[in-house]
Amino acid sequence: MIPRYSRPDMVAIWEPATKFRIWYEIEAHACDAQAELGVIPKENAEAVWKAKDVEFDVARIDEIEAVTKHDVIAFLTHLAEIIGNDQARFVHQGMTSSDVLDTTYNIQLTRAADILLADMDDLLDALKRRAFEHKMTLRIGRSHGIHAEPTTMGLTFARFYAEMDRNRLRLQLAREEIASGAISGAVGTFANIDPQVEAHVCSMMGLKPEPVSTQVIPRDRHAMFFATLGVIASSIENIAIEIRHMQRTEVLEAEEFFSKGQKGSSAMPHKRNPVLTENLTGLARLVRMSVIPAMENVALWHERDISHSSVERGIGPDTTVTLDFALTRLTQVIDKLVVYPDNMLANMNKFRGLVMSQRVLLALTQAGVSREDAYRLVQRNAMKVWEDGKDFKTELLADDEVTAALSPAEIEEKFDLGYHTKHVDTIFTRVFGEC
Amino acid sequence: MIPRYSRPDMVAIWEPATKFRIWYEIEAHACDAQAELGVIPKENAEAVWKAKDVEFDVARIDEIEAVTKHDVIAFLTHLAEIIGNDQARFVHQGMTSSDVLDTTYNIQLTRAADILLADMDDLLDALKRRAFEHKMTLRIGRSHGIHAEPTTMGLTFARFYAEMDRNRLRLQLAREEIASGAISGAVGTFANIDPQVEAHVCSMMGLKPEPVSTQVIPRDRHAMFFATLGVIASSIENIAIEIRHMQRTEVLEAEEFFSKGQKGSSAMPHKRNPVLTENLTGLARLVRMSVIPAMENVALWHERDISHSSVERGIGPDTTVTLDFALTRLTQVIDKLVVYPDNMLANMNKFRGLVMSQRVLLALTQAGVSREDAYRLVQRNAMKVWEDGKDFKTELLADDEVTAALSPAEIEEKFDLGYHTKHVDTIFTRVFGEC
Amino acid sequence: MIPRYSRPDMVAIWEPATKFRIWYEIEAHACDAQAELGVIPKENAEAVWKAKDVEFDVARIDEIEAVTKHDVIAFLTHLAEIIGNDQARFVHQGMTSSDVLDTTYNIQLTRAADILLADMDDLLDALKRRAFEHKMTLRIGRSHGIHAEPTTMGLTFARFYAEMDRNRLRLQLAREEIASGAISGAVGTFANIDPQVEAHVCSMMGLKPEPVSTQVIPRDRHAMFFATLGVIASSIENIAIEIRHMQRTEVLEAEEFFSKGQKGSSAMPHKRNPVLTENLTGLARLVRMSVIPAMENVALWHERDISHSSVERGIGPDTTVTLDFALTRLTQVIDKLVVYPDNMLANMNKFRGLVMSQRVLLALTQAGVSREDAYRLVQRNAMKVWEDGKDFKTELLADDEVTAALSPAEIEEKFDLGYHTKHVDTIFTRVFGEC
Amino acid sequence: MIPRYSRPDMVAIWEPATKFRIWYEIEAHACDAQAELGVIPKENAEAVWKAKDVEFDVARIDEIEAVTKHDVIAFLTHLAEIIGNDQARFVHQGMTSSDVLDTTYNIQLTRAADILLADMDDLLDALKRRAFEHKMTLRIGRSHGIHAEPTTMGLTFARFYAEMDRNRLRLQLAREEIASGAISGAVGTFANIDPQVEAHVCSMMGLKPEPVSTQVIPRDRHAMFFATLGVIASSIENIAIEIRHMQRTEVLEAEEFFSKGQKGSSAMPHKRNPVLTENLTGLARLVRMSVIPAMENVALWHERDISHSSVERGIGPDTTVTLDFALTRLTQVIDKLVVYPDNMLANMNKFRGLVMSQRVLLALTQAGVSREDAYRLVQRNAMKVWEDGKDFKTELLADDEVTAALSPAEIEEKFDLGYHTKHVDTIFTRVFGEC
Repeated sequence: MIPRYSRPDMVAIWEPATKFRIWYEIEAHACDAQAELGVIPKENAEAVWKAKDVEFDVARIDEIEAVTKHDVIAFLTHLAEIIGNDQARFVHQGMTSSDVLDTTYNIQLTRAADILLADMDDLLDALKRRAFEHKMTLRIGRSHGIHAEPTTMGLTFARFYAEMDRNRLRLQLAREEIASGAISGAVGTFANIDPQVEAHVCSMMGLKPEPVSTQVIPRDRHAMFFATLGVIASSIENIAIEIRHMQRTEVLEAEEFFSKGQKGSSAMPHKRNPVLTENLTGLARLVRMSVIPAMENVALWHERDISHSSVERGIGPDTTVTLDFALTRLTQVIDKLVVYPDNMLANMNKFRGLVMSQRVLLALTQAGVSREDAYRLVQRNAMKVWEDGKDFKTELLADDEVTAALSPAEIEEKFDLGYHTKHVDTIFTRVFGEC
Repeated sequence: MIPRYSRPDMVAIWEPATKFRIWYEIEAHACDAQAELGVIPKENAEAVWKAKDVEFDVARIDEIEAVTKHDVIAFLTHLAEIIGNDQARFVHQGMTSSDVLDTTYNIQLTRAADILLADMDDLLDALKRRAFEHKMTLRIGRSHGIHAEPTTMGLTFARFYAEMDRNRLRLQLAREEIASGAISGAVGTFANIDPQVEAHVCSMMGLKPEPVSTQVIPRDRHAMFFATLGVIASSIENIAIEIRHMQRTEVLEAEEFFSKGQKGSSAMPHKRNPVLTENLTGLARLVRMSVIPAMENVALWHERDISHSSVERGIGPDTTVTLDFALTRLTQVIDKLVVYPDNMLANMNKFRGLVMSQRVLLALTQAGVSREDAYRLVQRNAMKVWEDGKDFKTELLADDEVTAALSPAEIEEKFDLGYHTKHVDTIFTRVFGEC
Repeated sequence: MIPRYSRPDMVAIWEPATKFRIWYEIEAHACDAQAELGVIPKENAEAVWKAKDVEFDVARIDEIEAVTKHDVIAFLTHLAEIIGNDQARFVHQGMTSSDVLDTTYNIQLTRAADILLADMDDLLDALKRRAFEHKMTLRIGRSHGIHAEPTTMGLTFARFYAEMDRNRLRLQLAREEIASGAISGAVGTFANIDPQVEAHVCSMMGLKPEPVSTQVIPRDRHAMFFATLGVIASSIENIAIEIRHMQRTEVLEAEEFFSKGQKGSSAMPHKRNPVLTENLTGLARLVRMSVIPAMENVALWHERDISHSSVERGIGPDTTVTLDFALTRLTQVIDKLVVYPDNMLANMNKFRGLVMSQRVLLALTQAGVSREDAYRLVQRNAMKVWEDGKDFKTELLADDEVTAALSPAEIEEKFDLGYHTKHVDTIFTRVFGEC
Repeated sequence: MIPRYSRPDMVAIWEPATKFRIWYEIEAHACDAQAELGVIPKENAEAVWKAKDVEFDVARIDEIEAVTKHDVIAFLTHLAEIIGNDQARFVHQGMTSSDVLDTTYNIQLTRAADILLADMDDLLDALKRRAFEHKMTLRIGRSHGIHAEPTTMGLTFARFYAEMDRNRLRLQLAREEIASGAISGAVGTFANIDPQVEAHVCSMMGLKPEPVSTQVIPRDRHAMFFATLGVIASSIENIAIEIRHMQRTEVLEAEEFFSKGQKGSSAMPHKRNPVLTENLTGLARLVRMSVIPAMENVALWHERDISHSSVERGIGPDTTVTLDFALTRLTQVIDKLVVYPDNMLANMNKFRGLVMSQRVLLALTQAGVSREDAYRLVQRNAMKVWEDGKDFKTELLADDEVTAALSPAEIEEKFDLGYHTKHVDTIFTRVFGEC
């Protein structure tokens, strides 16, 4: 977790105080269920709720853990200090530490997912708004970094929207995957605790009971969760790289918003660096690096070993905090991106109509010219543009062999940009359900 | 693709002949749609189907490609050789190579997913059968590789079933993700081709149209697909490691099936190596290694660059072929796994009842003994077992302080293994819907 | 950086105070060199050293950065507050922020490497001591987790020593790789600063000048550095997994040291979990996960983009801190590992001599018995051991067909364990230079 | 191994015939050593060499393996078919299959490294030649994709040279790491074979004896080897991305060589796609993906498990073949890269002198203008360039406040490009030892 790439709400999920609060709620709900089953006295279950509004003393718990070398016991000891040793004696009965720890970890990931889903909603809003704003803003489409055919900036935003919308669905599924809890005892047999306790705790904490756990909740769920975050990060990188390209000096079709106060802007107006999207490129790598360890965590020995734990202490907070920051930063970038339609047009016209050469080629063949001849005609005019700086349409109109096949109006028509935008509405309707 | 880890059906998907067949079908369906729209003559569309039952000459296509340096053009040239240049002249009209290539790749991945789904069905069948067979086969549960509490072999199979069942759902979703096609032209604007062509081709080929493509289908879909395969591979590793542990000399609770013919078996009966599951452990790594490159492929430049292509030429076949082989091998291992219930019992009793110490501890405290005293009582009897090879239950029954709190019948009850299996049916019902 | 897996010396390297101290030293040395070249006045260079013993006010620098949004400018502003605006006016002249930042990062990595090298020395010491202690402690060697032939515990420690010794050399090389500095200006041309400044700063800071830098030091150096840490981590995992196996209940050839105070030890003496080595397994994954991002960082755009920066802010501290902790923890584990030679012997004899079956087979063929017959003879006696619990040597001695080929003394000799240890000294001499 | 990205020499290393040839040589040399030691008869050792010039029948060996299910036994059986059963009876005596397999794998990797080293020599030659050719070819340096200060194309080639030169040294070290062999028997104790056999075989095959092996050669060596290839691949990506940027339509400072015959070039002269370097970007990902599995292979169980084997069957050939192809392709790209110095100049002047703004700023402050005033002066003239398309130098010369501080000659001097190239020779001397 890197402070400068962290937002407080997500950080809060991973703070000790939050963790202890969740532990407490799990234990208290478990006592309720145990009392309902007649396993422990009702008054002891009720007594646990006396700590409902107490803020646990993290330092005190750490102090106890330094002696007991066991975090759950330390917490329970502190809880007993609050509600009284006698009242506390049935807390945690029949449970194993992992019941609390694993269920808590999943609650934290679920809450993290909720924040990320909200982040994605904001991002989707921004992308949609900018897509409609620039629905018909013409721009050259590029394959291999080379001019191909015209497209629109709206379509660029629309495809980012569609991609992030898929990611939102993936994250929703990953959230469901991870929203399971287990209160099943030392090796998952419910030998010492009734499954109804698990059912009650899960219900109260917004989880589904894990159908079959061992000492732990199976880690394929977590692997899928972090893999999904890795895909989202890769999409962030995808958008970031588009913007970085748009901002490079020779292209300059857009710029990240640059606040007036930021030093150095106006004395070197050419030197506005796309540092936010470059940063997002790096953050994507940081998020993605959790994927393989999360997968390596799946193969635990028998009913559990604890090799996954240190990994999860790292990637749980680090990955969700970084992705939350990245999504939010990306939303700001999209929201405030300064788009330069004039530069887009200028870039498109950089080679004076040459990007239309394929359309002309096609028109010539459709007009009955042989493929070879059509190619030769296009080629000789294209070369005048490329080498001598002529205008492609002008040259075509002046080429008798071309005009023998195509009328001036037909040639003009090949340079009509509306040709390229005629299905933008179709695509928008597919993506947004409206256009 | 490593020959010894390859199965013919999956390999066939990736053979040039299959690829050309799919290209052909896409082109032919596109012609039908173009004819329907009146863009090309009906007879030309019909003529394309003359090649329906022709086996394309891969060597000939390669020969042409060596000259044209363009695979799609080489194929189209060969197709024209079959149906006649004149008839072929409208084939591919308005399309770009990527329309064919990307749609084909997704068809291949979709078919690969179908084989993998069938593989998983077989694996689930085997796991379920073995789970019910050993539903009540007692076995010591282990955390950290150390004996914890009893469980059953059936629960082990059941949790693998549940995990693979989740993977099956994930794969189903990944298959849906990847089942999209695009016939949208050079930069995805449908400038040169009507969206209805895409709709028709996709419908005939079992795909959904990609809502917004550029020159290519967005690669977040593929990242998600390969990430999902990586999770499945990790679950394979999880099962493999369980079996490798069970087979190790000191444990010997199960063995991979060992065919009579295999050299060296009976002269060294202790030396039956779990080579299949070790192999699966390695294959899992091979499958997993495609995940990061697939994610790195997402961030293409503008409307496409071709950096993803070489990666996909590798990981497409390699990963699906390897995973297909691994799933099938795992099914065989599970199906024929030789389970040794007697050894399971012997292992469980290795420390003469000590695994019940926690139950006794709990019983003592529930009987009113203070936590400290209960601990002391358990400890002193446990030590006789650990250090002097005594039997735990016998020692407890002979300890006056213990029997003052617990009756002999109560002590006996703590060693009743039924205590640990009483909820197996509950868990089976959760997992299988029956027990 | 996970607090519980962090040691203060390594953490200190990455603290803001350390960073600012290094920045200061670089700036001060640069001023000296500039003064020597006559570019700035000597008294200004000398004035910078007034801050030599000042502890920089991190909070104040953060405060300034909040306004300037530029960390180096914030630091320089604070420095000017200390030594006076007028005296400070030549500080940083001709330099670019990256000159300071990149050189500092490499100094931090170099210092981190020095700590890691010292860690490895301690680990090597512990491994060597334990190797000699158990040079001849007999133990069954296992392939595939299955008993193979005898070896010694000393050889196990010796191979870990040899592996870590290779790692030490690799780390030494990686340290040399990373010990470069650059003071070369905006795009690395020394347009605004003389190469002698770089030479002086590097010399004073223990670095070599980067032969050709751009705005940044090339990141292949860092990729190699983190890849090397990943290999070391993998070796840690290798050792950890050996110990985890040795400690599992059925094997029990060794145990991690278990302090008396640790809760729960003696009431469940069978339940001493190898949590330290399991933890090391997870920490290895955490270290390893930096390798790919560090490699992805190599391909920066043109003379630099800043995508690497966020990655390095994460993996720089996280990876070195985790590896430092892991190495130290491993040293403690090795140092205090409780080895059980008796259990090793008991395990070796688990199948009553069967592990010698291959030796007997070989002896029979060498005595002129055909391969088929030899196999049959070994097989029929082996089966009595395997299935009926007989002793292999006893059975062989009672088998007339066997004794017809091998004398009792020859048979006895095949069970002599000295046969397996006769080259231990040779191997020790290779590894340690002594035996 | 993807056929289109494969070169025959590297492929040959991984062919069965090569493997069997190496097996044969190992076995034959081992027999020589055994005979020298008096363990086997000299005539039997000599007889093995009868097969020296025989081409082994791979199909026959496969046929035998189909029965024996053991590759080494299948080979030995075939060898016996050639040299006679009786003569062959001592072949492989005292050895274990892994002695042959592991030593062979390392020989293959060593030979692969030799090819790669030769590839790198060619690449270094090309880079050096182009560096000197364009030593003084001016070009704008870019940070963040934004124009910064001038540099030269020669420096770009020089830094790639320096990076690849480091990689060459790394590969040399990795080759040394991997050039070890082991003939140490079932668990590495030399129980059944004298260490002198290992010494002789290694000496004859160009390897060093592994100081302490188990059944296998330790896999940290291989992890380091593949990690090194991953770093090299990352440097290839680094160069590839530079060229891709240079070729993009708006930049056009260089183009990959485009053969006359390649279809479509001249009718769309703007559409020359940097497909080779895009391909290299993907190939880099393919090479890099072997790094983590190779590291996961390090932690084998006890004296060996076979999980590493399937991984190595994949990554051994795939990674070396791909990297060989990539290095060779990159050399061709560099060798034939079409560089456009005129476009470089045009790009540099795109903003009419603005890239010099920082130099002017510095000059003003050095001339005694306060930092704030200097900034204001630069800013107001820069804005005229940025917004109104004026020329920076012209504006400065016309600004009285500027000329009050700087003489026209001084202003002119700030636009002298020689300022930026004055240390190119220094850097070249550092990199190449000459300039």
